Amino acid sequence: MNKNCNARITIGRQFGSGGRQIGRAIADALGIDYYDKNLMTEAARHAGLNPALFEQKDEKAPSFFSGLLSYNMGYSAYNLLGSTSSITDDALYRAQTEVIRSLAEKGPCVIVGRSADYALRDRDDVVNIFIHAPIEERIKRIMERGDASTPEQARQLAEKTNKLRAGYYNFYTDKRWGKAESYDLTLDSSLMSTEDIVELIKKYIELRNK
Amino acid sequence: MNKNCNARITIGRQFGSGGRQIGRAIADALGIDYYDKNLMTEAARHAGLNPALFEQKDEKAPSFFSGLLSYNMGYSAYNLLGSTSSITDDALYRAQTEVIRSLAEKGPCVIVGRSADYALRDRDDVVNIFIHAPIEERIKRIMERGDASTPEQARQLAEKTNKLRAGYYNFYTDKRWGKAESYDLTLDSSLMSTEDIVELIKKYIELRNK
Repeated sequence: MNKNCNARITIGRQFGSGGRQIGRAIADALGIDYYDKNLMTEAARHAGLNPALFEQKDEKAPSFFSGLLSYNMGYSAYNLLGSTSSITDDALYRAQTEVIRSLAEKGPCVIVGRSADYALRDRDDVVNIFIHAPIEERIKRIMERGDASTPEQARQLAEKTNKLRAGYYNFYTDKRWGKAESYDLTLDSSLMSTEDIVELIKKYIELRNK
Repeated sequence: MNKNCNARITIGRQFGSGGRQIGRAIADALGIDYYDKNLMTEAARHAGLNPALFEQKDEKAPSFFSGLLSYNMGYSAYNLLGSTSSITDDALYRAQTEVIRSLAEKGPCVIVGRSADYALRDRDDVVNIFIHAPIEERIKRIMERGDASTPEQARQLAEKTNKLRAGYYNFYTDKRWGKAESYDLTLDSSLMSTEDIVELIKKYIELRNK
């Protein structure tokens, strides 16, 4: 662990902006822990929580909200019948919040997604970052990593995923996803190499720690 | 002029976030020109434009839009009668765009406000920054500089001015004021000294110029 870095760094990101890759690179550069959905599942298992709770495809607001977003989650009947799936969603959110808090308690780290900024809002060692990029760049990246085979498919996937992330964030926090004022620092990832973004964020953390 | 800086830096900002002071400090640190509303009035005069066009209190969308925002601009009668004042607003916007473009043409500079980022969207040497701060910090700053005498007055002034700025920006550009994706870099000014923010932005420009 880097003795100069005490920060718990949270990263929100547009789908396809490379935010996760940047998060990993920051953790490597600072020699601190890195967590995203996969590692949080692992952490939940170790903590004795049901990891199935974390095996969702992406951040999602409760299902009645997802319904508003016209997202077919495969249990629409529940939406009509009552709050069964909402209860599950809330349990998932509470479990995630607990896991995020205990990971942050362990030491400096980078946590990507899951409104980690809000889960950690009472700590004073948190740095909240948001990564975005122009849609053309995101489409390119989404296709390069094989998540879509046509630009139109990539665009739709980006739009749908960002809607879900925004719905999740706006539902569970008192802030707005993607608005500058919700974060300490936001960056357009298309204007610099990942290496240079990491250098800038290191500089930012160094200045914050002064 | 700093030989290492070729950038045209535009700064959008929440009212009371200290964005103008930061813009001035960046220009001083880089040894480049600085423009805000006052200096643009001067520039317009030199260019033979009517400076009265620039002597508006702040950025404003056309008056029919201002009407929606319940902002009394002193010529509400015009709003009811037709588009006379809208024509004036559009002429003002076009004149400002021309002045901003010719200032950027002259050399590296910092331009605060007036959707300068959009006026300069076809240049490839522009760095677009947005500065914000939590409302409590903005209220403190607004009162310190004597723009309001009570916290409630400061809060209302901040909200009204930001609504006007957002209205202006959203009307004239194809982007959204205050959204992270509208800018290259955004910062919460309450988390660092102005000096440190300047140091970070210098680093950012250095990395962009690589």
